[in-house]
Amino acid sequence: MQSEILNAAIIIIGNEILSGKTQDQNIQFLALELGELGIRLREIRVIPDLEDEIITTVNTLREKYTYVFTTGGIGPTHDDITAEAIAKAFNDQYILHNEAKEIIEKYLADHNREAAEGHMRMAHMPKTAVPLLNRETGAPGFKVDNVFVMAGVPYIMQAMFQEAKNFLKAGKPIISRSIDVYVSENIIAVGFSALQDKYPQIEMGSYPFRRRDRWGTSLALRGDDPELIEQALSELYQFLASVTQDDNVTK
Amino acid sequence: MQSEILNAAIIIIGNEILSGKTQDQNIQFLALELGELGIRLREIRVIPDLEDEIITTVNTLREKYTYVFTTGGIGPTHDDITAEAIAKAFNDQYILHNEAKEIIEKYLADHNREAAEGHMRMAHMPKTAVPLLNRETGAPGFKVDNVFVMAGVPYIMQAMFQEAKNFLKAGKPIISRSIDVYVSENIIAVGFSALQDKYPQIEMGSYPFRRRDRWGTSLALRGDDPELIEQALSELYQFLASVTQDDNVTK
Repeated sequence: MQSEILNAAIIIIGNEILSGKTQDQNIQFLALELGELGIRLREIRVIPDLEDEIITTVNTLREKYTYVFTTGGIGPTHDDITAEAIAKAFNDQYILHNEAKEIIEKYLADHNREAAEGHMRMAHMPKTAVPLLNRETGAPGFKVDNVFVMAGVPYIMQAMFQEAKNFLKAGKPIISRSIDVYVSENIIAVGFSALQDKYPQIEMGSYPFRRRDRWGTSLALRGDDPELIEQALSELYQFLASVTQDDNVTK
Repeated sequence: MQSEILNAAIIIIGNEILSGKTQDQNIQFLALELGELGIRLREIRVIPDLEDEIITTVNTLREKYTYVFTTGGIGPTHDDITAEAIAKAFNDQYILHNEAKEIIEKYLADHNREAAEGHMRMAHMPKTAVPLLNRETGAPGFKVDNVFVMAGVPYIMQAMFQEAKNFLKAGKPIISRSIDVYVSENIIAVGFSALQDKYPQIEMGSYPFRRRDRWGTSLALRGDDPELIEQALSELYQFLASVTQDDNVTK
């Protein structure tokens, strides 16, 4: 039986990435986690904190992919407009969400802290939202349908993603193998292309790198069939041995 | 006279970011460089090496923004399909480009190297392309109209971007100032929002951080009017002094 293909998109909401203030640290984490779950990450968009942009982007991508993950814009300040925009995207009401409120109040009580003005803003969500616990700082993310709304701060996002996993179907894990070789892409282009033609089910990529002033190429194989990957990998080794010396090849 | 608003989008083409194999290193560089040129980066998309995705994304964004920068997919291997896709996006021919060929041949001659099978593939471009020199490894990027097509390897991309700058109009540099304060966002949300309302021309953002287990908030002000930014910054200091102790505030 052919298993269902699961895929996903990420929407990074926030001017801090677009302005260059912050270096993104969420993409690679989510890409690797989704790969392990057998969910193929197909697209990422980084957009500003503008309501119309959020609504349009969420509505485009939630139709196109199995899952959509958003990061950023769910804090207590004026630039945090993601939750309200998500409510509008789903034609849902944006309300003080009882379950979210209880989660925050319990977290504050457990940590002997008082509620500040911003906390109740973070308890506002779309009416149909299911909160995603955040064991780090209390205020939850949430999901609506296939859209998972998470914080932008990496370790809070990671805590919310662990909760999100409870709602995700998993496919066959995607296996990535790569060989690094100190040979120019120009030398291996034709042979590598022939290998790709022979194994169309495997995604093969070639990425030049430079380490300590020495040029090389990283050849990556990805797919969900471990045996097929091993077979292609072994042919790739043979091909590389024919165009270079063994000591130029590392795994 | 109101100056023209210059904006831009980046398209990152390649499965290596989507698979998590590679951590992106290009976004922040381009975001900061564009900011200095007074060009506002409004959107980033990361898409796979698929022709239809490249064509659709390029055609959508080149209509919407002053400039579009693509990175990735212009090397010599089978997964490098960006140049041909750009030709199709512009209904242009994809040809062995004389000027690009000469640039590569000269680079190889200057470095006493012979042409390998992949080099002439990198001399293929849209017919109307203007090559962007690459002083690092020879094979040029290119521009067609307002779309700048660059390599994915960071320091090659950076070399091509230096050439691309010759074709860019510059606006008023965008100034970013920020204050880091060891106070929760929840405490400052209302006051910071009032400041944003007072200075609508300045983009104000609030970003929580944790350093050595201590929580804080980074408050960022961005705009192209230096005096206005200084004025708002001074009011922000006064506000922060009223809700915290001085030694909690750093610049």
